[in-house]
Amino acid sequence: MIYSAVMGYGVVGSGVVEVLTDHRESIAKRAKEEIGIKYILDIRDFPGSPFQDKFTKSFDDILNDDEVRVVAEVMGGVNPAYEFTKKCLERGKSVVTSNKELVATKGAELLEIARANNVNYLFEASVGGGIPIIRPMSQCLAANEVIEVAGILNGTTNFILTKMIRENMSFEDALRLAQQLGYAERNPAADVEGLDAGRKICILASLAYGKHVYPQYVHTQGVTKITLEDVAYAASWGGVIKLIGQVKKLEDDTLDITVEPMFIEKSSQLASVDDVFNGIMVRGDATGDVVFYGKGAGKLPTASAVVADIIDCVKHLKARKYLYWADGGEELVKPYEETSYPVFIRAEADDRQAVFGMASELFRNPRVIVRTNAAENELAFVTDEMTVKEQQNAIARLEENGVKVMSKIRISDL
Amino acid sequence: MIYSAVMGYGVVGSGVVEVLTDHRESIAKRAKEEIGIKYILDIRDFPGSPFQDKFTKSFDDILNDDEVRVVAEVMGGVNPAYEFTKKCLERGKSVVTSNKELVATKGAELLEIARANNVNYLFEASVGGGIPIIRPMSQCLAANEVIEVAGILNGTTNFILTKMIRENMSFEDALRLAQQLGYAERNPAADVEGLDAGRKICILASLAYGKHVYPQYVHTQGVTKITLEDVAYAASWGGVIKLIGQVKKLEDDTLDITVEPMFIEKSSQLASVDDVFNGIMVRGDATGDVVFYGKGAGKLPTASAVVADIIDCVKHLKARKYLYWADGGEELVKPYEETSYPVFIRAEADDRQAVFGMASELFRNPRVIVRTNAAENELAFVTDEMTVKEQQNAIARLEENGVKVMSKIRISDL
Repeated sequence: MIYSAVMGYGVVGSGVVEVLTDHRESIAKRAKEEIGIKYILDIRDFPGSPFQDKFTKSFDDILNDDEVRVVAEVMGGVNPAYEFTKKCLERGKSVVTSNKELVATKGAELLEIARANNVNYLFEASVGGGIPIIRPMSQCLAANEVIEVAGILNGTTNFILTKMIRENMSFEDALRLAQQLGYAERNPAADVEGLDAGRKICILASLAYGKHVYPQYVHTQGVTKITLEDVAYAASWGGVIKLIGQVKKLEDDTLDITVEPMFIEKSSQLASVDDVFNGIMVRGDATGDVVFYGKGAGKLPTASAVVADIIDCVKHLKARKYLYWADGGEELVKPYEETSYPVFIRAEADDRQAVFGMASELFRNPRVIVRTNAAENELAFVTDEMTVKEQQNAIARLEENGVKVMSKIRISDL
Repeated sequence: MIYSAVMGYGVVGSGVVEVLTDHRESIAKRAKEEIGIKYILDIRDFPGSPFQDKFTKSFDDILNDDEVRVVAEVMGGVNPAYEFTKKCLERGKSVVTSNKELVATKGAELLEIARANNVNYLFEASVGGGIPIIRPMSQCLAANEVIEVAGILNGTTNFILTKMIRENMSFEDALRLAQQLGYAERNPAADVEGLDAGRKICILASLAYGKHVYPQYVHTQGVTKITLEDVAYAASWGGVIKLIGQVKKLEDDTLDITVEPMFIEKSSQLASVDDVFNGIMVRGDATGDVVFYGKGAGKLPTASAVVADIIDCVKHLKARKYLYWADGGEELVKPYEETSYPVFIRAEADDRQAVFGMASELFRNPRVIVRTNAAENELAFVTDEMTVKEQQNAIARLEENGVKVMSKIRISDL
C-alpha cells in the first residue's frame, strides 16, 4: 500500500477522493500497488463526510508522515500552495497538481526542486482538464520540434462566445447564463480577462521550448470587449471569433506568444470547438498538426487527470519521470508591439468613402467587409500583416482625424 | 551513447533514420543520452546512401551485438518481423514498432516476453501515425474506465469517402486518385476491405480492456460496396458515411467490436474528420469524450512516433514502462449477429407503397428517407435498433418476396 494525501477538498479535491475510492481496484492493477488516502487537508469541516477520519487542518501532519509518498495539491492559488509543494518535494514526496497558476508562476523552480530531490512534480490536470496534453507533448511528440501551439484553453469564455455566435446573445447575458450554469464564477475576471488561458499557454510554451515563460511577459486580452457586431463581421468574413492562446517560435528564436480574441476561419479545426469544450493544436515539424479535443474543466475530468498523475508517481517512485524546463526571462518573448499579423478594424464612419480613403493610406491593403444590418455609420475592414506598433500608429492617426476605432481584432493564421 | 538498430529501410524506416539523424541534439537532450544508429537491416542495396556503413543483410549482426539496446522494427508484415522481435526481446533488447499487423496478431505474446525479460515493447506508431493515442490511453486516461473507443482509423478509405461525399466521385475513381497520389497501394485490399482499420481497433480494444482481442473475431467490412446513392441518402438523413472502427463494453462484459461503414450525424466530432486525416474518440467515465485528431499516416509523422518510443525506451532501460495486456479469446467478443443497432436499408422498389408495407411488418419502426434525384424504383429507410440476426432475417424475407436489397449500413450512436 502506497499512501497519498489530498490538499484541498473543493471541487477537484473531492473528485480526486471520489475517483481514488470508486476505482480502487482498477487503479491498483494499473499502479501495481494499492493507493490509499491517508490525509485530506482542508481548513473547513465536512460533517457527515464518509472520510471523517482522514481530514486534517494541519499541513504538518502530511509533511511529517514519511508514509505519504504522493501528495495531490488541488488547493489552487499561489499561497500557501507554493510553500506546501516546495516542502513536500524537499521531503522526498512527489506532488501532482491541477494548479495552473502555481505551475505558470513557479514551475521552473518547483521542477528544479523535484529534480534535486529525485521525486516528481506532475501537472497533467493544469491544462485541458481531462484532455491528455502535457504528457503527449513531453513524450509522444518528443521527436518533433514544436513549431506552434494554439488552443481554445478556457471553457467559460468559449461558452460565452458560442452563445454570442449561435444565439446572438450579448456578452453580459451570456456571462450571466454561464454563472447560472456554474461555468463561470461570481468574480469571473480570471476567465473573461484571459488570465486563465494565459497561464495555460505559458505552461504549454515552457514545455514546448524548454524554458519557463512567465505570464507577466505575455500579452493577455480577454473577451469583455467583443460585441455582437464583431461576431457578425467575423461571420461575413467567413469565420468565428475565438479566444486563442498561441505560441510560435520566430526566426530570431524569440516567441510570439499571446492570448487574445482572434478571427479564425470556419475551416480551421479549432473553429468547431464550441461550448465549454477545449481544443489544442500542436504543430510539429515531423508530425504535422495534431489536435486534442475534450472537456477542459469539470470535477471528474480534472480529477481523473490528477489521479492519472498519482498513478504515474506511484509507478515511478524510484525512476524519475522526465518532465522539466529551465528558468527563463523576459528576453524569451518578442515584445507584443513588434509582433506582426493581419488585423480586423471596425470604426465609426459617417462618411464611409472618406474614412476608407484615410484607412487606405494608413493600413496595409485594407479590404472592406460588408454585412447585412450593419449600422450606416460604420466601416469594417481587414488588413495584410502589420506589426502591432504600425497598427497602433495607424489607429492613432485615424483617431486624430476624428474617426473613432471601436474594434481591433487579430486575424489568426490557424 | 546508446545504440539502436532499424529493421526495414522502407518509407517509415528511412524516416526513422532521418529523424534520428536530423534531430540528434534535441533527442539527446530529451533522452539524456545520445542515441546512435548502429545497424540498418534491409535485404536491398542502397547505393549512394550516406548510411552505407550501417547497412546489413544479416539479422544476427543486430541480435548478437550487445551494444544494441533498442531495435525499431519497421518492416511490416508478420514474418519475419515476429521472429526477429521475439529474439530481440529475449536477448534483452527493447523493441519499438509501427507494425500494426504484428501487434494485432501477436501483441499479447510479445508483451509477455518483454515483461519476462524486463524490457519494453512499444508501438505508439501502430495506430494513428503521428497522433499520440497509445500512451494517452494507457497513461493519461489510467483513472478512467473506458466506455467506448471509436475512430476513423484509416486515411486511405477516409480520403476515398471524402471524395465521394464532396465531389460526387465514384468509388473506383476515388480509389484511382488515391493510388495516383500515393495514398493507396497498388493492391489496396488491406485498406479498402477494412483490414487495416480492424487491426487498429483490435490494438485499441486490447489496451482499453486489458485482454487481447484478435482480428479474426471481429466483424470487418470495408468501403468497396458504398455507392454514391448511399452517400446522397446519408446527406438527406443529416450526416455522412465514414468507415468507423468501434468497440464498447456491453452489460454482459463482452465487447461490441466492429469495423464497418456507418452513418454518422453531421454534429459528431468525427463527421468533420476528412481527407487522409484520422480522428479517434475515447469515451471515459470520468473524462467524458476526448478526441485525438491528425494525420494518421505518412513517413515523418509515423517515424516521429517510432522515435518517441525509442527515446522512451532509452529513458527506461532499467525501469520498465507499464504497457501490457493479457491473452484473450473468442469469448471476449459478442458474436456480430447478436449485436444490435439501427440500420439504413436501400432496396429496389417498383411499387414503393407495397415495399414499404412489407418493410413495416419486417423491420422495427422504419422511416422513409427521401432525396432529390433518387431513382424512381428505389426505397430507402432507417429503422430502430435491431439485432443483426433480425436485420438479416427481415432482409431475407424481403428478398423472398422479390425485393432486392442493395444497401444495409449501420447507423452509429456517435
